[in-house]
Amino acid sequence: MDKKKISMAVVRRLPKYQRYLKELMVNDVDRISSKELSEKIGFTASQIRQDLNCFGDFGQQGYGYNVKDLYNKICEILGLNREYSTIIIGAGNIGQAVANYMNFDKLGFKLTGIFDINPKLIGLKIRDIEIMDTDYLDKFLKESKVDIAILCVPKNSAQRITNVLIDGGVQGLWNFAPVDLVVPENIIVENVHLSESLLTISYLMNRR
Amino acid sequence: MDKKKISMAVVRRLPKYQRYLKELMVNDVDRISSKELSEKIGFTASQIRQDLNCFGDFGQQGYGYNVKDLYNKICEILGLNREYSTIIIGAGNIGQAVANYMNFDKLGFKLTGIFDINPKLIGLKIRDIEIMDTDYLDKFLKESKVDIAILCVPKNSAQRITNVLIDGGVQGLWNFAPVDLVVPENIIVENVHLSESLLTISYLMNRR
Repeated sequence: MDKKKISMAVVRRLPKYQRYLKELMVNDVDRISSKELSEKIGFTASQIRQDLNCFGDFGQQGYGYNVKDLYNKICEILGLNREYSTIIIGAGNIGQAVANYMNFDKLGFKLTGIFDINPKLIGLKIRDIEIMDTDYLDKFLKESKVDIAILCVPKNSAQRITNVLIDGGVQGLWNFAPVDLVVPENIIVENVHLSESLLTISYLMNRR
Repeated sequence: MDKKKISMAVVRRLPKYQRYLKELMVNDVDRISSKELSEKIGFTASQIRQDLNCFGDFGQQGYGYNVKDLYNKICEILGLNREYSTIIIGAGNIGQAVANYMNFDKLGFKLTGIFDINPKLIGLKIRDIEIMDTDYLDKFLKESKVDIAILCVPKNSAQRITNVLIDGGVQGLWNFAPVDLVVPENIIVENVHLSESLLTISYLMNRR
C-alpha cells in the first residue's frame, strides 16, 4: 500500500468510521455489510468500500465486515494503539474546556502539562494538573517528551510559542489560535479555526 | 453568477480571506495584488483569482485588489452585513468557552440565551446572560426569533434538542456534539467534531 495515495478526505472520514463502529460494538453488533453501514453513517456503500480498501482488504463477499476487527484495524490506522503525551498552552476559555474534556484521555491522549502566562492562573489545578508558567515551557520540554501540543493562546503569541514547542521536540500541533502557523514540513498541524467554521453557517444561511 | 457552482472548498477559504484582509486593513494597506496576497495567505495567486471570480469581478489588471472594498464584499458574501441571534444549548466546558469567546459578538453573532439541564448551572450568569432551564427552550423559541443554535450537549440528547430547535424556527446549527444530526434539507448544520480533528493528528504522526 502506497501511503502517499491516501487523500486527506479519506483520512478525515476515518474517525467517523471509528465512532460508528464503536457504537455498533457497544450494541453487540458482530458484523455489518457496507450497505448497512452506509445507512448508518451516510456515506454510500461504494464510498465505504473504496475508503477501507485504501488500507487493506477487510470485508468478505457475502459476509460484510467483522465489526470488532474493523474497529481495531481503524484504531491502529489512526495511531490509537499507543499513547500520546500532550500539553495545553493557554488556560483560557478554550484551553480549560479542552483540559476538562475527559474523552481525549480515553483515546490515549494523556494531558501531562498546562501552561499560561497569567499569574492568576499559574498554580491553579485543572484535573489535578497544575497550571505552569509558560516561561518554564522550554525547560519542561527538555525534561519530558511531549508528542502533541494544544495551542489555545492569542494569535499574537501563537507563532513564538510554536517555535519553542518545535525546538522542544513536539511533533504535532492542535492549533485553536486564529492564525496560520509556519512550521517545518515534518511537523503536523491541525487547525480548529472556530470563527471560520461559524462563518460558513452565515454564508450558507445567506445563500439559500 | 450561479450560486450552485460554488464548492464548499471555496466557501471554507472565504473566512481566511476575510481574516487576512482585515489584518491588511489594520496595517493600513490600501491595495494588494493576488501575488502579494498569495505570499501572505499561502494559496497560489491563480487559486485566489479563481476563488474570488466565483463571486464577481474584484481585481483590476495592474492594480490588484482594493483591500477595503474586497474586505467589505467578502463580509457581505459571508452574510456578515446583518446580525444573527444565537443561543447556546449546554453550558458545560465547551458551551461556556464559546459563550465567553467575545469575538463572535464582534462578527455579529449576538448571544441571546444559554440553556442547560443542570440545576446547579441554571440561574448562573455568563456574560450577563442567565443560564435557563432547557425545559424552557421551546417556549423561548416561540417568544424570540433565534437564527443559530450552538449545540454543546452530550451526544445522547443532541438529536432530541435539535428537533425542538428546528420546530422553534432555528435555521442554523453549530454542532459540537459528537454525533451526526438528522435535519431537513433547508437547515444548515456545521459540525465541530473535536475528537475527529485530534485523531487526524495521531493518524498523520503515525503515517510519516
